[in-house]
Amino acid sequence: MAYNAPLDDMAFALQSVAGLPKLQGLEAFENYDPDLITPILDEANKLARDVLAPLNQPGDAHGAVLTDEGVKAAPGFAEAYAQFRDGGWMGLSAPEEWGGQGLPKALALAVMEMFHSANMAFGLCPMLSFGAIEALLAHGTDAQKQTYLPNLVSGTWTGTMNLTEPQAGSDVGALKTKAVPQEDGSYAISGQKIYITWGDHDVAENIIHLVLARLPDAPAGSRGVSLFLVPKFLVKEDGSLGERNGVKCIGLEKKMGIHASPTCVMEYEDATGWLIGQENKGLACMFTMMNSARLNVGLEGVAVGEAAYQAAFDYAQERKQGKAQGVDGPAPILHHADVRRTLTTMRARVAAARAICYACGVAADLAEAAPDESTRASAKLREDLLTPIAKAWSTDMGVDVASLGVQIHGGMGFMNETLAAQLYRDARIAPIYEGTNGIQAIDLVGRKLSGTNGESMRVMLGEVEATAASARATNDPQLVQIADRLREGAEALRQATDWMLEAMKQRDQDKALAGATAYLALAGDVIGGHFLTQAAVSARGEEGGFRARQLALAGFFAETVLATAPGRVSGITQGGDSFLDNSEALFGIA
Amino acid sequence: MAYNAPLDDMAFALQSVAGLPKLQGLEAFENYDPDLITPILDEANKLARDVLAPLNQPGDAHGAVLTDEGVKAAPGFAEAYAQFRDGGWMGLSAPEEWGGQGLPKALALAVMEMFHSANMAFGLCPMLSFGAIEALLAHGTDAQKQTYLPNLVSGTWTGTMNLTEPQAGSDVGALKTKAVPQEDGSYAISGQKIYITWGDHDVAENIIHLVLARLPDAPAGSRGVSLFLVPKFLVKEDGSLGERNGVKCIGLEKKMGIHASPTCVMEYEDATGWLIGQENKGLACMFTMMNSARLNVGLEGVAVGEAAYQAAFDYAQERKQGKAQGVDGPAPILHHADVRRTLTTMRARVAAARAICYACGVAADLAEAAPDESTRASAKLREDLLTPIAKAWSTDMGVDVASLGVQIHGGMGFMNETLAAQLYRDARIAPIYEGTNGIQAIDLVGRKLSGTNGESMRVMLGEVEATAASARATNDPQLVQIADRLREGAEALRQATDWMLEAMKQRDQDKALAGATAYLALAGDVIGGHFLTQAAVSARGEEGGFRARQLALAGFFAETVLATAPGRVSGITQGGDSFLDNSEALFGIA
Repeated sequence: MAYNAPLDDMAFALQSVAGLPKLQGLEAFENYDPDLITPILDEANKLARDVLAPLNQPGDAHGAVLTDEGVKAAPGFAEAYAQFRDGGWMGLSAPEEWGGQGLPKALALAVMEMFHSANMAFGLCPMLSFGAIEALLAHGTDAQKQTYLPNLVSGTWTGTMNLTEPQAGSDVGALKTKAVPQEDGSYAISGQKIYITWGDHDVAENIIHLVLARLPDAPAGSRGVSLFLVPKFLVKEDGSLGERNGVKCIGLEKKMGIHASPTCVMEYEDATGWLIGQENKGLACMFTMMNSARLNVGLEGVAVGEAAYQAAFDYAQERKQGKAQGVDGPAPILHHADVRRTLTTMRARVAAARAICYACGVAADLAEAAPDESTRASAKLREDLLTPIAKAWSTDMGVDVASLGVQIHGGMGFMNETLAAQLYRDARIAPIYEGTNGIQAIDLVGRKLSGTNGESMRVMLGEVEATAASARATNDPQLVQIADRLREGAEALRQATDWMLEAMKQRDQDKALAGATAYLALAGDVIGGHFLTQAAVSARGEEGGFRARQLALAGFFAETVLATAPGRVSGITQGGDSFLDNSEALFGIA
Repeated sequence: MAYNAPLDDMAFALQSVAGLPKLQGLEAFENYDPDLITPILDEANKLARDVLAPLNQPGDAHGAVLTDEGVKAAPGFAEAYAQFRDGGWMGLSAPEEWGGQGLPKALALAVMEMFHSANMAFGLCPMLSFGAIEALLAHGTDAQKQTYLPNLVSGTWTGTMNLTEPQAGSDVGALKTKAVPQEDGSYAISGQKIYITWGDHDVAENIIHLVLARLPDAPAGSRGVSLFLVPKFLVKEDGSLGERNGVKCIGLEKKMGIHASPTCVMEYEDATGWLIGQENKGLACMFTMMNSARLNVGLEGVAVGEAAYQAAFDYAQERKQGKAQGVDGPAPILHHADVRRTLTTMRARVAAARAICYACGVAADLAEAAPDESTRASAKLREDLLTPIAKAWSTDMGVDVASLGVQIHGGMGFMNETLAAQLYRDARIAPIYEGTNGIQAIDLVGRKLSGTNGESMRVMLGEVEATAASARATNDPQLVQIADRLREGAEALRQATDWMLEAMKQRDQDKALAGATAYLALAGDVIGGHFLTQAAVSARGEEGGFRARQLALAGFFAETVLATAPGRVSGITQGGDSFLDNSEALFGIA
């Protein structure tokens, strides 16, 4: 019943769907060779399957613990982290200059997917380090990079993101933590941060906190927020660890899931920190971390969905109830059509979300590493467009699929000892953190759609229509039917996009924002369907079973999801009228 | 932040939507007077709000405990049960002959909804007693009724349903518990039952177990199953309690939710039992209990959805993040359009499910109590049709709505101390027990649709179309738009129904069963939309705010749910092809 990565699906998604070949031959990825994919994924799967997965349920039962000496990770986690670190996994996509392997982020995503599938609570620790590395690479000074990057990239130290305060969640600009400039160029940081993932622990020597705070004379709101680096242990000139900084964990949240991931209340008391980037430009730096983190959280949705699918599939093979044609005695429930439908629903949605996340990763790689400016710019637009979809669509999917996984298990799925129950609890955080899915939807229709006047979505829609055309051109009747559904889906998304752009231009944007979540859901469905269709077309050259599987998943998704697209436009364009026009009667507000 | 029943909504749903007036003046309900509705619901709300709700989160944290003396309920539950019992709530809809109040079941449903909303773990105890009362009323001998019914109806004793064994879940016919006839006419029952809700406890003097078991010479499978009554304490001739019977709880399941509801492993060792109904006809008796229980489980979905909605609405009023027009400083998140959409989604779906469940209850009342045979028969058809929809559609809704409730709470929703998190965990059992929702879907397309050659659904569709016509006839532009959506929905459901009836006639029923869950979802949406439309039409005579609310909920549901109906037919009729035709590639089975 252990997790085992779907290596063929992952490699195929990277190569034939997400566009990893576009990175081949680029100077930034001179280390990258497609022959590396299989051995790297293979090796990561060993760590995921053999080391991380066995710790998942014990970690859930035990959790992390706050002691007088700080937070102790759940049993076995420190040893597992050492194996992760020694395997060089942290630096897979980091620049060689800082000790990394200079491979594409998209490949690192596939690796992280396995770690999250096997043990989401564990995977959160490196996920936050990635964000810290990204922020330092983008905004750190040379000296800061030299001091912190090598140990972060090697995994010797870990990183955190400190944004939230009790009164400042989605509205980061409401934060109150103070940063007072000191004579030596450092800042004294004081305040309290909540919901800090892996904010303290004993699995690495040092922890590099990236902390949003406010200078004494800073303007109000988000324009007065700056980013600071605050190490748990101060780092001496020679790079060795010095004294303990004025930051500590003063409480652990009691959560519904991811128990082995310590969620800390962090107290800063005149802690020594250094400015990252410019004063009052912390929000831009934060978005560097956040974009990386948002894609990675989307990937958690994929990962937990995959884990739920595998657990459900295994259970459906083992559990016997009722009869089936061609089976003597009680039949495995896998033989019941309704169970097969549920499993197919899970698998198709996981595959679609995986493709969206990997494609977002390839776009992020191209946005940084493409040799020509125009390719970088268009890749950046693609990355920006797909990031909120990858985050929100994949994590909503993760919750739904984990719930279906419980359902397949019947009564057993409701028992604590069952992995399916843990996944249902773990999955629920992903639509919330790194920007709630509602915030993602607002980001999509605001910055990403309205902010580009719809340009990035129009380019995306052109590709969706090209995919439909290529499927139609095969003359394979099943692919032609899928192509029709995809074209209808694209048309629905185009209508909704045009309406949304127009609505966002009006002075009262509530009508637009009232449809944002439904718009994001439709966009994810259509773009997900586009990738599944691409997969089915590309798989025509693969062996029979693999080809049949891709075709079945694309066909199922087309008939059950894409077919609903035309009927969902009115829910976006008109669904908001009913409650906006009756807010007094419904909510007691104007 | 406490639960407070939506008394106006409930009374309106009973009177103006579900058809409670049809029961007025019937001989069986001579005690019933519509003026009773308000005082009864009011009084039930006091128990729910003031006694049961405050025990909900402590009960979750503490749970029930197995001791040497048997199961101890969570602190306060015995006292709360005494108040429930003394209030006469158990016998609300039981015949006066046995100490009940002879009121409609539909009214008792509304009362039970409150108890489940306030404390689902508590509500399960009377819910199981209802099932036992129903089974005894329908299948017990006069002597059995006299011995057990008065104390069950008064709530002095409680009842249980003992069906499941480790190898016999959905496939009840696979059970192995033995019943050996004794010379005195009793039977010696031996075996193990699992997942027995409130199988043991200390909140009542005696527990009446209804147990499925197999006679020594019984045929294999479900045709060899008989129902037995096994009291925890044997009842003496004079009605007083005698010695302890050979049945005990030997373990409590560790569950994801409903911690205060003891889920017992029950061991029967030569326990003394009595046959209920005829030998080998236990399944028919079980369905008497199950039908009552299925509707009541559907109601749990409504109840947990309502509780989640209330908690989310309260939080959205209190939590301040970001800005809103007309609000100084940080605005309550209720002002954000996306939050309002989420709340409206929750409320509309809860209202639709409530109407379905109450209407099913009225049908059950009419099926028993209507004076003429033909009304009884058509009401029975309606009850049969709505029962699987009430169970599955409402409980899937409960899970979704509880999840949305967590989302509204943001990070706080993931914390154990938050009611929203408990509701998300509690809600998850309802799609599983009393027949998984997959089983409900098979029941719907099998017995209920195919078994009546579509008659009951055709009558229902006629009413849906009549509702659309009545909405159109108002000439109110909003109602006319809703009517159009409802008519399209009805047409889609009619197409799907015709296809399903044809597919069920084919020798290979897998194609039909592969679409059963999607068919049930569509049926629930259309019938739910029909009731919401009825409510909006009926509310035209009510005061402005109430009228506006009903119209807003119906309008929102029409644009966001009914509008998707036409696009969902192909998911029912063709969605199965992709995985049935590729089972080898997807699942490794033919």
